[in-house]
Amino acid sequence: MLAQLEKFYSQLRRIYTLGCIGALLDWDQKVTMPPEGGGDRAEQLELMSALSHQAMTDAAFLEVVDSLYEGRAALAPSDFVNVREMKRMLDRARCLPVDFVAHRSKVTTLCYQTWTEARAKDDWQAVAPQLEEIVSLCRQEAELIGYEEHPYDALLQGYEPGGKISQIKPLLERLGTSLAEIIPALREKFRSVPEVRGDYPEDLQSKFNLHLATACGYSLARGRLDPTHHPFQTSLGSRDIRITTHFYRNDYLSSVYSTLHEAGHALYEAGTLEKYKGTPMGMPVSLGIHESQSRLWENLIGRSKQFCRFMHATLKDYFPEEHRRITPEELWRMANKVTPSLIRIEADEVTYSLHVVIRLLLEEQLMTGKLAVKDLPDAWNNLYQKYLGIRPTDYKDGVMQDMHWYSGAIGYFPTYALGNLYGAMMLKVAERELPTLWSDVEQGKCTALLAWLRKNVHEPGMTYGGPELIKRISGQDLNEGPFLDYIKHKFAEI
Amino acid sequence: MLAQLEKFYSQLRRIYTLGCIGALLDWDQKVTMPPEGGGDRAEQLELMSALSHQAMTDAAFLEVVDSLYEGRAALAPSDFVNVREMKRMLDRARCLPVDFVAHRSKVTTLCYQTWTEARAKDDWQAVAPQLEEIVSLCRQEAELIGYEEHPYDALLQGYEPGGKISQIKPLLERLGTSLAEIIPALREKFRSVPEVRGDYPEDLQSKFNLHLATACGYSLARGRLDPTHHPFQTSLGSRDIRITTHFYRNDYLSSVYSTLHEAGHALYEAGTLEKYKGTPMGMPVSLGIHESQSRLWENLIGRSKQFCRFMHATLKDYFPEEHRRITPEELWRMANKVTPSLIRIEADEVTYSLHVVIRLLLEEQLMTGKLAVKDLPDAWNNLYQKYLGIRPTDYKDGVMQDMHWYSGAIGYFPTYALGNLYGAMMLKVAERELPTLWSDVEQGKCTALLAWLRKNVHEPGMTYGGPELIKRISGQDLNEGPFLDYIKHKFAEI
Repeated sequence: MLAQLEKFYSQLRRIYTLGCIGALLDWDQKVTMPPEGGGDRAEQLELMSALSHQAMTDAAFLEVVDSLYEGRAALAPSDFVNVREMKRMLDRARCLPVDFVAHRSKVTTLCYQTWTEARAKDDWQAVAPQLEEIVSLCRQEAELIGYEEHPYDALLQGYEPGGKISQIKPLLERLGTSLAEIIPALREKFRSVPEVRGDYPEDLQSKFNLHLATACGYSLARGRLDPTHHPFQTSLGSRDIRITTHFYRNDYLSSVYSTLHEAGHALYEAGTLEKYKGTPMGMPVSLGIHESQSRLWENLIGRSKQFCRFMHATLKDYFPEEHRRITPEELWRMANKVTPSLIRIEADEVTYSLHVVIRLLLEEQLMTGKLAVKDLPDAWNNLYQKYLGIRPTDYKDGVMQDMHWYSGAIGYFPTYALGNLYGAMMLKVAERELPTLWSDVEQGKCTALLAWLRKNVHEPGMTYGGPELIKRISGQDLNEGPFLDYIKHKFAEI
Repeated sequence: MLAQLEKFYSQLRRIYTLGCIGALLDWDQKVTMPPEGGGDRAEQLELMSALSHQAMTDAAFLEVVDSLYEGRAALAPSDFVNVREMKRMLDRARCLPVDFVAHRSKVTTLCYQTWTEARAKDDWQAVAPQLEEIVSLCRQEAELIGYEEHPYDALLQGYEPGGKISQIKPLLERLGTSLAEIIPALREKFRSVPEVRGDYPEDLQSKFNLHLATACGYSLARGRLDPTHHPFQTSLGSRDIRITTHFYRNDYLSSVYSTLHEAGHALYEAGTLEKYKGTPMGMPVSLGIHESQSRLWENLIGRSKQFCRFMHATLKDYFPEEHRRITPEELWRMANKVTPSLIRIEADEVTYSLHVVIRLLLEEQLMTGKLAVKDLPDAWNNLYQKYLGIRPTDYKDGVMQDMHWYSGAIGYFPTYALGNLYGAMMLKVAERELPTLWSDVEQGKCTALLAWLRKNVHEPGMTYGGPELIKRISGQDLNEGPFLDYIKHKFAEI
């Protein structure tokens, strides 16, 4: 068994190292690669993903995993988790025939390209047939993987292990209904908020953002902040965890919150234990838990009155005019403005989850065949009318706004809303256990909170699934209560 | 044979792609990696070099190469060159037992580390025993590889295929003697040159350098310029060829010439034919020819009176005060100042080759055993006295200044001086064939010269070795005449 464990961990290390190299190829492509470098880069990425796939599906490795799993009763706890999780991932992968995977990859790559061009031209007809094929492949995939209750679960569990639509849908519907109810009053409330305006040079914004992210615990000794069109976080090693943001010259707040969001992801990746690097014990639990960390730092902390006071004080050193122009209170209101809008990624904290609820409802119907792709735009627009009170007038700001479906990712969206709920549940416990949390945050000191998250969320790695983890932390099952309480409480005060 | 050629080229492509990925890992480590990223990066580099090594020594691939080489008479010309060159490289590699290579790699890595620390402390004794081991391994390596005339040739040919000390040594000795003779008069001449001084912000220097490099034909569409401690050029693909430079805040000329040097390397790499990418037909001939391109742009063009006039005009847009302070003539003199100094990489165009001659003479004696490592510092100092009229007073600016020997590279240095000679021979022909060359350069137009270099030097790839290539271009064997004429002519005029 010792020899098998050695083989097991040596292969995991290889898979991890290949993955980090792939991450660098991807980061460089998005951040530093010259415009014409793409041709060779595609070949490099293809080779690395082939090597990763080979390493994951190596027959001897699969045998080792199966055999260790057979004898799992005798394993030490961390080995047990690692074997259990790898077995789960590999079993899932083994359900899909090689031909199916290759075909799926071709179709999704093609559809993604079509979408990129079609979106710019607002041309739904151009991409609809390919999306139809993707939905059909997703339904096949669900059958191949198998499920207990609902085909949607088979896809959802690729992002949220153990997730079930029978639990998630009622939860998110309740959340959606409650949020939709409070929006009209909030719209009224924010009519008179000051607008961000002025000229904020990128290099100063970058330094300002780094000042704030550093206060949250992000470190340039182990990371970088660069500008990209779409912000993202990526890990190139356990001590090389990079983030990007998008700067708008006339709006310094936008980049602050995308930086804090990505920094939240980065702090999670950096908080797993070095000794478990590259193994499930050193990996994030799920996308939902990952999103809980990004949205916790972005919203629960970053848009709190206390953090806004700290941010206001910090403004003095970077944008002194803005510091004089507005009060901390106004900055807090500016950072929390609620307006129903068509675009998910630009949505405020209250309306955001509604965008997700809409997508979940549509995905479910696509998967069961109740909704045909040709009817998707109407269904989309009707739900926006129902939940947000606004209606898209084109495709690109409607059904074609997100890349997810067009790149084959059905079942992914709910994790965004789950993140909000997990995060609020965690913070409620942290507030109780850290009596000086908010006075610390007001001074830009987040060390105790980060240590709390490390111990409770980051360091267990994949020991527990999301639902079990949150129960251990909070004593409760995943529910929308703490998030709704938090929203109602905050917006009552604003 | 067609099937074999397909296998051959598919494996070459794999080797090329792996090499490019390794180059990115290395570039990022030197340019963009966060300080603590080194641990994981070392593992990533190790994995990539293991994969490259596996691909190069794959038994089926070696068989294909051998078999194609057997039937080479039937190959098309470009296939013939590719098979011939791969056969040569692989045969060379096959002479070295796996154990020897592993041991050598360990010893050189260790010695390089020791040297880095020992150099800072000027501690020759700390590194001498390890250098002794390296010399002994180099002598073993030469015996394993085999040679016709001199063990030195076995090593030299790793960098300069077909190179022989019986030809190179007399050539460089004649060069050294001639240069040493003219130095005293030149020293006198440059006593009254204006000094570069002032404050030149890095971002402006960078833009200024890019303006000049772009005039030479370097393009940001296919490259980048970043700051690093040691300037270098690296190719991450046929359209992703990056350079770095070192900025000194008080001396804008230093970074100009390191940028032009690296841009020269980059223009060579970018000038090979896309259709031969990753095969010897699309690769540089040798380090000597590579250096001919870098030093041609840096010195023959970059330090010419005409280019200095163009640079002076360009100064106006970046450093207007400097533009007013000095005349084009003075800038030309500043860029060509001759002063014997101890450090090779800081040497001017005239004394540079002397540093190389000294190293070649020492290397030869180390390889034959005439010189023991313990006597190396004295021998070094004596040769500096003889050729440059100055004597190091410590080790770090003497025998310990360059990393080459301490990382196992004996036989590499001569390629630097060969580059000077090749470059001058090429330019002499180009001047004859391009009558408006110098008036073009004065206006910052180098298109015709670059096209000439592409056609004559870059596009043939490895079709010919260095000596044959220069004979085809110039009708002459490699010789020091054109370089000495160029030096004498220029410095008579200054």
